[in-house]
Amino acid sequence: MHIPVSVPTISPIADATLSQSLGDAINNKTKPLGSLGRLESLAAQLGLIQQTTRVTIDQPAILVFAADHGVVAEGISAYPQDVTWQMVENFLANGAAINVFARQNNCALRVIDAGVNHDFGVRDGLIDRKVANGTNNFAVEPAMSAQECATALEYGMALARDLPGNVVGFGEMGIGNTTAAAALMHNLTGQPAAACVGAGTGLDANGIDHKEHVVAAAVVHHAGAREPLDVLATFGGFEIAMMTGAMLQAAALRKVLLIDGFIVTSALLVAARVQPAILDYCVFAHCSGEHGHALLLELLGARPLLDLGLRLGEGTGSALALPLLHAAANFLNEMATFASAQVSEQLGERPA
Amino acid sequence: MHIPVSVPTISPIADATLSQSLGDAINNKTKPLGSLGRLESLAAQLGLIQQTTRVTIDQPAILVFAADHGVVAEGISAYPQDVTWQMVENFLANGAAINVFARQNNCALRVIDAGVNHDFGVRDGLIDRKVANGTNNFAVEPAMSAQECATALEYGMALARDLPGNVVGFGEMGIGNTTAAAALMHNLTGQPAAACVGAGTGLDANGIDHKEHVVAAAVVHHAGAREPLDVLATFGGFEIAMMTGAMLQAAALRKVLLIDGFIVTSALLVAARVQPAILDYCVFAHCSGEHGHALLLELLGARPLLDLGLRLGEGTGSALALPLLHAAANFLNEMATFASAQVSEQLGERPA
Repeated sequence: MHIPVSVPTISPIADATLSQSLGDAINNKTKPLGSLGRLESLAAQLGLIQQTTRVTIDQPAILVFAADHGVVAEGISAYPQDVTWQMVENFLANGAAINVFARQNNCALRVIDAGVNHDFGVRDGLIDRKVANGTNNFAVEPAMSAQECATALEYGMALARDLPGNVVGFGEMGIGNTTAAAALMHNLTGQPAAACVGAGTGLDANGIDHKEHVVAAAVVHHAGAREPLDVLATFGGFEIAMMTGAMLQAAALRKVLLIDGFIVTSALLVAARVQPAILDYCVFAHCSGEHGHALLLELLGARPLLDLGLRLGEGTGSALALPLLHAAANFLNEMATFASAQVSEQLGERPA
Repeated sequence: MHIPVSVPTISPIADATLSQSLGDAINNKTKPLGSLGRLESLAAQLGLIQQTTRVTIDQPAILVFAADHGVVAEGISAYPQDVTWQMVENFLANGAAINVFARQNNCALRVIDAGVNHDFGVRDGLIDRKVANGTNNFAVEPAMSAQECATALEYGMALARDLPGNVVGFGEMGIGNTTAAAALMHNLTGQPAAACVGAGTGLDANGIDHKEHVVAAAVVHHAGAREPLDVLATFGGFEIAMMTGAMLQAAALRKVLLIDGFIVTSALLVAARVQPAILDYCVFAHCSGEHGHALLLELLGARPLLDLGLRLGEGTGSALALPLLHAAANFLNEMATFASAQVSEQLGERPA
């Protein structure tokens, strides 16, 4: 199907002159060459995204998109669907892990109802962008219509345009969404279903086998879905599609994208098939414990900052990686240089 | 030689009843079982160290110990010895990486002159515990006398007793100290010198070969050094010995020890040979890019939190890992439970 939406163009960040300036600035800091490791490449990436050697982390925000998935009818989750809306309530009551980590790291948190199968009414702190009460069961029919997919993408783009800051973290909640993410990965990358499907919130081995069968059968069933946004409409969730839209718009606005776990990365996979330069804007927060994520990151050429066995979603990895982003910006902005601190530089040769 | 010092006794943290309570508290939080990965084991460790299910991170401090090494006469460093005191001046002027990261993470920083070959005079912000103006060249003679080693250990113990908080990070500065650390590791673990010696601040391949030869020859030369504190006196630096003392005392006081890179870990290696239970109190901040560190961590059974290719020392890894320690404490203290948030628990069985 054709998705009636127009996505923004994203420019690569490469800039040889600025790269040289950033490299010089980093190498003149009072430390052995390269000794800040990944923080150095992160600082250089921030500079290229922001087109300056004076980088900033301004009003970072994490967007948590929640939605339900018709494919739960196939029995692919260890938790009942009601947990989606119950966890949204938990977000609004500040009781979830993402609330704790966002608060700790002075990061704004926005919770979006992208398509939860529940009537929340008008609620403080909940951004209502509900496309529908959950998707259709993609084991049977496309998860969403072309128009629904376009609406989700457009809502996401508008949310990104409204953000005041220059760093956007992504998170999600949706019972069944590791199944949707696995189907997207299986279809778009051609990796075997077994390499894409994991335990999600805690399936046992039989549950994982069943989930793999559901994913593999659905991808065969919808063999006509080839174009990235068509694949998104066929298997995705409203939270995934809305993230894809928000990512595309945020990168077009040269914001830094903090990429969380498996589901967030599946939304990015779709976005990267539409606009490959989006990857230049991504900081990969962590490698999730969810089976499939390590391979998906590898296929995207991504190197995550953290590897702590997290598999919670919600944007928790994004929030936990934020201090490393600050550290990269801060060392570039605040450290003394060899000249300013009058510290001797490396010896030309090893003494005899 | 015999080191005339008395070290405190450290108790293991194991407590089956408290472990069960901590496990229950962690598992009742609104998240899939185990989904916070390493943060869950970290929270449990904090609870066992502090003997409570209500853990705190109180007034964390990083101690940066600086000293010089006689072995620099062998030409084992890419930087001149003057960089040790110049970097201490940089610490005092708030221009070094550790200043930036400690400030960012609201962590106190204490800079200790343990034995720098420079007269600083009395200086605000510099704690004078100078044992001597650097060690002897251990390629020729023991690095320090038995009394000097005892003094360094005692100074370290006293510094740990004076700390107000319950988390102590360790860092160091000392041109030549990766050579000292490699000699300690080579002697105490029996690993080949080539597995213990790395590029330090940036030696080339020839420089590393030479450094390996210096370390291997010195360990043969001092073949009589067997007891851990004797080995420490023979090859260590004053900053290393003072860290060993501070670690032993801090663990005896049930503080959390944040272990930084290769040199800090070599000080811990000595401490663990004297009091093996000290390892229960250690949080391993990161795996350094310095060759030898990954193996040393493995030999200690340690799993570092971060792996960012850092090889700067100063306690930078400790400072960067501190937010993860806060995150572990915060989720345990602040997250809602399934019962309090009225979130449904895991399904008993996979639906048909």
